[in-house]
Amino acid sequence: MYMAEVELSGQNVDAVLLSRVIDAIAKMDAEFNLCETRIGRTADDASYARIEVGAPTCERLDEVIGKLRELGAVPVNGQTITLATVTKDGVGPEGFYSSTNIDTYVNMNGKWVPVDDIEMDCVVVVDTANSKARCCPIASLSKGDRVVIGHGGVRVASMDRRADEERGFSFMGSDVSSERQKSLMVREIAREIQAVRERNGKVLVVAGPAVIHTGAGKHLAALIDAGYVNVFFAGNAVAVHDVESALLGTSLGVCLKDGTSAPEGHMHHMLAINRIRGLGGLRQAVDAGILKEGVMYALVKNNVPFVLAGSIRDDGPLPDVITDSVEAQKAMRQGTKGVEIALMLSTMLHSIATGNLLPARVKTICIDINPATVTKLADRGSHQSIGVVSDVEWFLKELRSNLIESDE
Amino acid sequence: MYMAEVELSGQNVDAVLLSRVIDAIAKMDAEFNLCETRIGRTADDASYARIEVGAPTCERLDEVIGKLRELGAVPVNGQTITLATVTKDGVGPEGFYSSTNIDTYVNMNGKWVPVDDIEMDCVVVVDTANSKARCCPIASLSKGDRVVIGHGGVRVASMDRRADEERGFSFMGSDVSSERQKSLMVREIAREIQAVRERNGKVLVVAGPAVIHTGAGKHLAALIDAGYVNVFFAGNAVAVHDVESALLGTSLGVCLKDGTSAPEGHMHHMLAINRIRGLGGLRQAVDAGILKEGVMYALVKNNVPFVLAGSIRDDGPLPDVITDSVEAQKAMRQGTKGVEIALMLSTMLHSIATGNLLPARVKTICIDINPATVTKLADRGSHQSIGVVSDVEWFLKELRSNLIESDE
Amino acid sequence: MYMAEVELSGQNVDAVLLSRVIDAIAKMDAEFNLCETRIGRTADDASYARIEVGAPTCERLDEVIGKLRELGAVPVNGQTITLATVTKDGVGPEGFYSSTNIDTYVNMNGKWVPVDDIEMDCVVVVDTANSKARCCPIASLSKGDRVVIGHGGVRVASMDRRADEERGFSFMGSDVSSERQKSLMVREIAREIQAVRERNGKVLVVAGPAVIHTGAGKHLAALIDAGYVNVFFAGNAVAVHDVESALLGTSLGVCLKDGTSAPEGHMHHMLAINRIRGLGGLRQAVDAGILKEGVMYALVKNNVPFVLAGSIRDDGPLPDVITDSVEAQKAMRQGTKGVEIALMLSTMLHSIATGNLLPARVKTICIDINPATVTKLADRGSHQSIGVVSDVEWFLKELRSNLIESDE
Amino acid sequence: MYMAEVELSGQNVDAVLLSRVIDAIAKMDAEFNLCETRIGRTADDASYARIEVGAPTCERLDEVIGKLRELGAVPVNGQTITLATVTKDGVGPEGFYSSTNIDTYVNMNGKWVPVDDIEMDCVVVVDTANSKARCCPIASLSKGDRVVIGHGGVRVASMDRRADEERGFSFMGSDVSSERQKSLMVREIAREIQAVRERNGKVLVVAGPAVIHTGAGKHLAALIDAGYVNVFFAGNAVAVHDVESALLGTSLGVCLKDGTSAPEGHMHHMLAINRIRGLGGLRQAVDAGILKEGVMYALVKNNVPFVLAGSIRDDGPLPDVITDSVEAQKAMRQGTKGVEIALMLSTMLHSIATGNLLPARVKTICIDINPATVTKLADRGSHQSIGVVSDVEWFLKELRSNLIESDE
Repeated sequence: MYMAEVELSGQNVDAVLLSRVIDAIAKMDAEFNLCETRIGRTADDASYARIEVGAPTCERLDEVIGKLRELGAVPVNGQTITLATVTKDGVGPEGFYSSTNIDTYVNMNGKWVPVDDIEMDCVVVVDTANSKARCCPIASLSKGDRVVIGHGGVRVASMDRRADEERGFSFMGSDVSSERQKSLMVREIAREIQAVRERNGKVLVVAGPAVIHTGAGKHLAALIDAGYVNVFFAGNAVAVHDVESALLGTSLGVCLKDGTSAPEGHMHHMLAINRIRGLGGLRQAVDAGILKEGVMYALVKNNVPFVLAGSIRDDGPLPDVITDSVEAQKAMRQGTKGVEIALMLSTMLHSIATGNLLPARVKTICIDINPATVTKLADRGSHQSIGVVSDVEWFLKELRSNLIESDE
Repeated sequence: MYMAEVELSGQNVDAVLLSRVIDAIAKMDAEFNLCETRIGRTADDASYARIEVGAPTCERLDEVIGKLRELGAVPVNGQTITLATVTKDGVGPEGFYSSTNIDTYVNMNGKWVPVDDIEMDCVVVVDTANSKARCCPIASLSKGDRVVIGHGGVRVASMDRRADEERGFSFMGSDVSSERQKSLMVREIAREIQAVRERNGKVLVVAGPAVIHTGAGKHLAALIDAGYVNVFFAGNAVAVHDVESALLGTSLGVCLKDGTSAPEGHMHHMLAINRIRGLGGLRQAVDAGILKEGVMYALVKNNVPFVLAGSIRDDGPLPDVITDSVEAQKAMRQGTKGVEIALMLSTMLHSIATGNLLPARVKTICIDINPATVTKLADRGSHQSIGVVSDVEWFLKELRSNLIESDE
Repeated sequence: MYMAEVELSGQNVDAVLLSRVIDAIAKMDAEFNLCETRIGRTADDASYARIEVGAPTCERLDEVIGKLRELGAVPVNGQTITLATVTKDGVGPEGFYSSTNIDTYVNMNGKWVPVDDIEMDCVVVVDTANSKARCCPIASLSKGDRVVIGHGGVRVASMDRRADEERGFSFMGSDVSSERQKSLMVREIAREIQAVRERNGKVLVVAGPAVIHTGAGKHLAALIDAGYVNVFFAGNAVAVHDVESALLGTSLGVCLKDGTSAPEGHMHHMLAINRIRGLGGLRQAVDAGILKEGVMYALVKNNVPFVLAGSIRDDGPLPDVITDSVEAQKAMRQGTKGVEIALMLSTMLHSIATGNLLPARVKTICIDINPATVTKLADRGSHQSIGVVSDVEWFLKELRSNLIESDE
Repeated sequence: MYMAEVELSGQNVDAVLLSRVIDAIAKMDAEFNLCETRIGRTADDASYARIEVGAPTCERLDEVIGKLRELGAVPVNGQTITLATVTKDGVGPEGFYSSTNIDTYVNMNGKWVPVDDIEMDCVVVVDTANSKARCCPIASLSKGDRVVIGHGGVRVASMDRRADEERGFSFMGSDVSSERQKSLMVREIAREIQAVRERNGKVLVVAGPAVIHTGAGKHLAALIDAGYVNVFFAGNAVAVHDVESALLGTSLGVCLKDGTSAPEGHMHHMLAINRIRGLGGLRQAVDAGILKEGVMYALVKNNVPFVLAGSIRDDGPLPDVITDSVEAQKAMRQGTKGVEIALMLSTMLHSIATGNLLPARVKTICIDINPATVTKLADRGSHQSIGVVSDVEWFLKELRSNLIESDE
């Protein structure tokens, strides 16, 4: 849904003109909302009306506004964009427009051009020669880039809740209460993942170490094997504990078979890290026949691209970890292309980082046992985010049972 | 394990005497711990030793202490109990001994007598004629009751962790982290419930409304039908939402089949309450053929005793609810007799109230998705309490699958 | 703000008629919203419009609707109420209207009559002879009462956010994040309490035991002494620990002066309970010169009415506690009359119970360190509820400093 | 306190020998604990005793063990360390000893040498020529390093709780309940910081963005100005929001003066980042007279060293941020030298990362409003960690008032 506002003002604005405008909108099947109406009581009073108009596409909206112009209505934000030039690498000009994560168009000399690579808190770089615009993080700006200044000539889509509601997905949306039926939610999420897969969209999984500690790694590995994971983001700890469990049967020293603490188990993760460092990396460990199960094994075996992003709490780290945060963001940004649904499993850092990179239109499902984390993650200003306060172990077990049974 | 302390003091206490005492303890298979040892460096220095001695029964401990007395050791707390008389109903005499929830003996003229109905924060009422002692809440004291004053002559068991550890139950004990494998925990809990049932012990279930809201009522009803619940405590809300779901298919207006909100669903719980009030109560509703499924139906049908305790946040309430909190406590106290294991499902108020009434020896399993609640509930000064930070829906589903499959 | 809907339909509905209706509404300074507009494209097409109209009072709304009737508009819900008779004490007739906590009018033969004692989940009992209506809990219905059935003829106010927003109060409303400046929030809350006091409204304080455990009792007592608390709700535990701290200097055995555990301190609360039971109650303890400080002392001394409601987790209880939950609700219902602002301090049970009894128009401020509790409490479907995730100790210290300084 | 175990075994072990050993230990003022005692009942039975011996220094412990050897006791772990050589940079030899964060000695040919730079999860690198040992992260190992293998010859101090208890510090230790008097806790923490300062120890502050969002930045800046912060760790967000508040008066767009949302405030942090990027960094911004207040200004002005560590959720980042996590860890490791007390304010990532680098002997105070975070942070296997569940705003206000008043 694209929205714009038009104004009617002056002495000849009366109920009759207003009704004509409404009539015109209604006949074009567009939507409208009377934001403000001050109709003078006598013929001399100045009257005023502000009307919000909505249409399903940016193009259709332009047609409607064109028609209303003929009736005397003036678009509230109709000007073309203002541009400035970057004078120093990695620094934006003062007053630059900072993007949201919602589909956006910019008005280049009267033509509405979509902004590519939409991402929040970016600068919009414009290629006037080719009528192109794209989001660019400040750090990646280059001297000479032409950049949008201010809000003039920028049009942001409003999110359309109804399409999803018809499909029954978003009944779960706003409420992150733990007192809800999770099995119903998982069933809907499974349907959504199936739908994404059927239209060849990508499924992104972002995981935290609880996935391994709770013994849910086997369910995630099964989903990877069944082709339900197209790209994977995590940190060093997930990979370390997954490898620890594959090589030594423990996660942080706790035996995954029976829950007991292994003798000297607190050293196991260092041992796992050291062994992979010795081999040169995870793929090498798989090729050498040493890493033979678990999540990382499944990713390597099925050639699913993954990004392991470093953090200052990492031990080791594993050779596969991208330790520079700016480089890791770039790799993640690359990985999110084509993603239509993202499962964020028990990690606040990686989920927020991923959420920052995703367009609002991507569905995100945040699973965490801590309601505060879920609230924080689900609060993206978009009804496309669903929070599930839940055990990740049982969530993944149930999801696996829904998805893999439904295949057979 | 019963513990007592003996002292050795004076100039003839030396390493040789100490070794003899240790030798004597060791030969009687008792346990000991040297709490304090000040052995004089010259023959003139006063020496002192305090030794804690432990034996598996109160009687055996008395034998060991008798032997040590012969060697010159003096029991630290060897006197008989002091008594006072209640002069006003419901009021204890100043200085009364306030009980713990751990098995306790009182020394009545040299004989160690067990305290019946052990419960924390009670007064110990003694019947000297019959050598009997029992816990009594202050409110139930009667004029003329003879009551223990101070700590003299009171011996409290220390909890014996090892017996359980051998059975693998308590590995879960102290840690209420959510990052654990719940399926392993549920397996152990199921084993423990089976063991209780095999020795004809009782299983108590204490439930909060989340059990119904999450759709887990069907799992709990199945466990009741299969005979795994011997007594049931809850509040008005559990029964109301269970009846709402049985009569109208919703819980707090949310449809349990598909998670959607029913039209006018917010009135459903009032409608359910009103209907049961009209019929006179839950049993009447079952007898009338109106209440035909759910947790309350299963309890009535299987003649499982239940206590619904009132609270100030209740709507209605249902006629079966005991609205007076002192009366409700009495009914719960009665219900806990013979209970060996208690499952506390997503309720803080009823779980704490029940925990206050239970002897420390009763195993309690607290399931809640809020770690703060679990920590509070599991912190009973006893390793018999296990906290599981988990979805109650999936906990009950998994428990049902463990218990009912294992029957077949 | 009172809202109603009117419909326009038929072949003579066109943009001109619509504009006249809008014109009429605008001239009466009422508000409107076009909910649905289907204007036929040819003269033969049936047209339809549904318009929501709002006015600041129920009476003014009737005038506007009267005017629109003249133009051919038909009110969507214009009928009079339907009544049924109670045939059994404490049981409503099937299909009764269940009230919300928002100001409500019922249409008795064309006249809009306000519903007194507005409270959620109640039945509306009507006295047709005197044109009166009032909320009544199911349990208090008497045989012969005339009761509203269904929604016909019932008009509920919509909450008017703007009046408060102008006063700067509700900027805090929806967000219960802990990452906010609490000192600003406390300043606004203090202003609001001052305003209530200046117009002789009542301030209700609902408190949980953390108020005492955290040592904040002295701040609350100072607020009571300064006349900022007009009515007080709590449970047995608050009074017990307050008395414990007044008599023995500890709360649950922890010394409030230095935070150390008192020897045998775990018995202190039983000792405090027993002493008050011996004296007959809190007022008797004050009169006897034994209770000389603390929250309960301040309430008794200043003749502030209080309700101590019993619960099944109580020890004792104190003689002042109302142990029957239905009786306690009645006392609380009585206590809420005239309350304009309610501070709910670190108690979930008593806060929810109180929230159930309060009209939506009463401002409620919920302070708790647990965000989940604050979210639950603040979620009353009203912007009048503010949640503050905070230490109650520092909240009360800051509030005291704001209120008592501002007096001087 | 340094602990070691000795064994007595064989037919001539009887109570008399045992008493002689105990006598010897007692005469050397060492402590002991009889771990296991199996004294044969007849002269032919094999007897066995295992005794734990403790002394305040590693050297004194050696003397005691030397004496006990003469009586026939055998140290349980008396051998010298085993070494292996690193064959590949950044990879440890199989079986390496993984360090704890507790003061540790290694036995180099009979001499106990302290391990420098003690840090958990590191390898112990030994310089036999100079009798030196030090902790080294795996990633920093160089080919040719000599590394300790296994536990033989390694002695780890046990933490001595009593010294602190005498000073009243650790009464707060184990319990992270929110229902405690925070003002008492802050008073003790302030005393401890004063004590550290008086002995020229360093105070480390680790901060999260809530410090700025809650408006507590001014209190922290005052503490920096008063010389109470010797080193500072944070992430990009803290510095960004601090600069945003200094330049624009908002934090994440919320006005710190009155809590309202600034128009276009959501862009403020990007604007702040961009401005500092344009200037080249924080010090440059201070030198240019643009950054004139706030936490970062205070740090720069007072020449307090700081580390801003990057993470994948960063916007920008600021030029001062170390984006590589391994490099950031190195800078933090350097910064922790000489630190005696660490305040960890509302940040899980940076607090855990810092905790990983600190020796156990460093006191850590973790302040967070989320009890789960506090529990996680305070759980370092050391009584030197104190968790305070609290608003960071009021904690810093109270700490400032305690420290800065107490100076005057």
